[in-house]
Amino acid sequence: MQFTSEQRLDDGILEREFTLGEIPGTLWTPESAAPTPLILMAHNNGLPKAQPRLVARARHTASYGYAVATIDAAGCGDRPRSAADEQVRAELRRAMQAGEPVDEIFESLIGPLVEKAVPEWRTTLDALLTLPEIGGPVGYSGWTALGIHLAAVDPRIAAAGFFAGGFVPRAQREEARQVTVPLLLLLQWDDEGNPRQRALDLFDAFGSKEKTLHANLGGHVGTPWFEVEDGGRFYDRHLK
Amino acid sequence: MQFTSEQRLDDGILEREFTLGEIPGTLWTPESAAPTPLILMAHNNGLPKAQPRLVARARHTASYGYAVATIDAAGCGDRPRSAADEQVRAELRRAMQAGEPVDEIFESLIGPLVEKAVPEWRTTLDALLTLPEIGGPVGYSGWTALGIHLAAVDPRIAAAGFFAGGFVPRAQREEARQVTVPLLLLLQWDDEGNPRQRALDLFDAFGSKEKTLHANLGGHVGTPWFEVEDGGRFYDRHLK
Repeated sequence: MQFTSEQRLDDGILEREFTLGEIPGTLWTPESAAPTPLILMAHNNGLPKAQPRLVARARHTASYGYAVATIDAAGCGDRPRSAADEQVRAELRRAMQAGEPVDEIFESLIGPLVEKAVPEWRTTLDALLTLPEIGGPVGYSGWTALGIHLAAVDPRIAAAGFFAGGFVPRAQREEARQVTVPLLLLLQWDDEGNPRQRALDLFDAFGSKEKTLHANLGGHVGTPWFEVEDGGRFYDRHLK
Repeated sequence: MQFTSEQRLDDGILEREFTLGEIPGTLWTPESAAPTPLILMAHNNGLPKAQPRLVARARHTASYGYAVATIDAAGCGDRPRSAADEQVRAELRRAMQAGEPVDEIFESLIGPLVEKAVPEWRTTLDALLTLPEIGGPVGYSGWTALGIHLAAVDPRIAAAGFFAGGFVPRAQREEARQVTVPLLLLLQWDDEGNPRQRALDLFDAFGSKEKTLHANLGGHVGTPWFEVEDGGRFYDRHLK
């Protein structure tokens, strides 16, 4: 793990870019004498780690006393894409513009993306946990499909916050019952591209004994800011 | 409004019993130099104001810096019941034990209860707002059907927190679209007596532009304690 740049933000948080082999990542750490818990943060559908809403959320979460890390996993963000991937994405754009059903295209795009991304997130987690400024336990925040697979296969994930606004492949809808950590599912009630009933069914399917759904009126990008604060308190209950 | 008894609780909150004509009530006020906002708190289906879970919630909410008031409105709690009311309640118990449908019995019981209770809550609100220790604005917490009718007819209600675990008569299901204040609806995902879909439909029906649903796994009385704290922050956003 090599740090390639760093900047100290106004509130004392250290923001560092790193690479781990081919994986580019960003790590935010608060000023703290003791090692802090860690939250892995990912965008639904593999959106770039530099996306401003993710960065704002990561910085704010770090200010609550967490190390926060994100990566562009294989095929995600600005990582190179295979010709096959490019073709599926072109087909997705065409189908969306034509108003055609897109579920099967999403399935063929997001399914493999999750399968390839999870090992890189685990490798990153291995490396992060060797840093002296990071202790345990480990939480997860964001991309639902990735987080389901990660929490199902990696027992180090102790609590998970998911945003329902993303496509969840069949494999992860099945796998949801294997997720048993405390979880918070965030739903935008009128999310244009993500049917409400699927999110409610997913919430029902999770195996966790402690699970909470927060739904707010509005479209995909309308999540109210107070949900970041509510998320912080959710992690505080389980990671501190 | 006559105070009939008072006790100072360990955390400095003053708990006073009062009567207002035939209406018995309880008022909790925190130690505060300035007048505080007020939250009216009622139990679903007209359960008694002295019910321990309501009292615990009221005391805790007062500790956040709110005056909290509850009453036994006409026909509710320990207030005298008409022979007709007693008959409907006996029929309800019989039908529940026999496993028969109870919706129409609840309709004939709760519908009139809400109609008769709301004027008494408004009279109580008039009196409470004359007390020097209480300022505005006014929030509402608890019994959904009562709160819908109250918020629809009384513009002094500025924010409402509802608990979905109670029967909502047809008139209030219709009236929900006239409720436009910020609201928080609390749902127990596996509430034995209250179908989940009705609560989701009700959430959808409210006219409020800012509305949030919190759902937690578990049965009717299993609401996690952190929801009282979340409720406190909801009121803080809108009443302070």
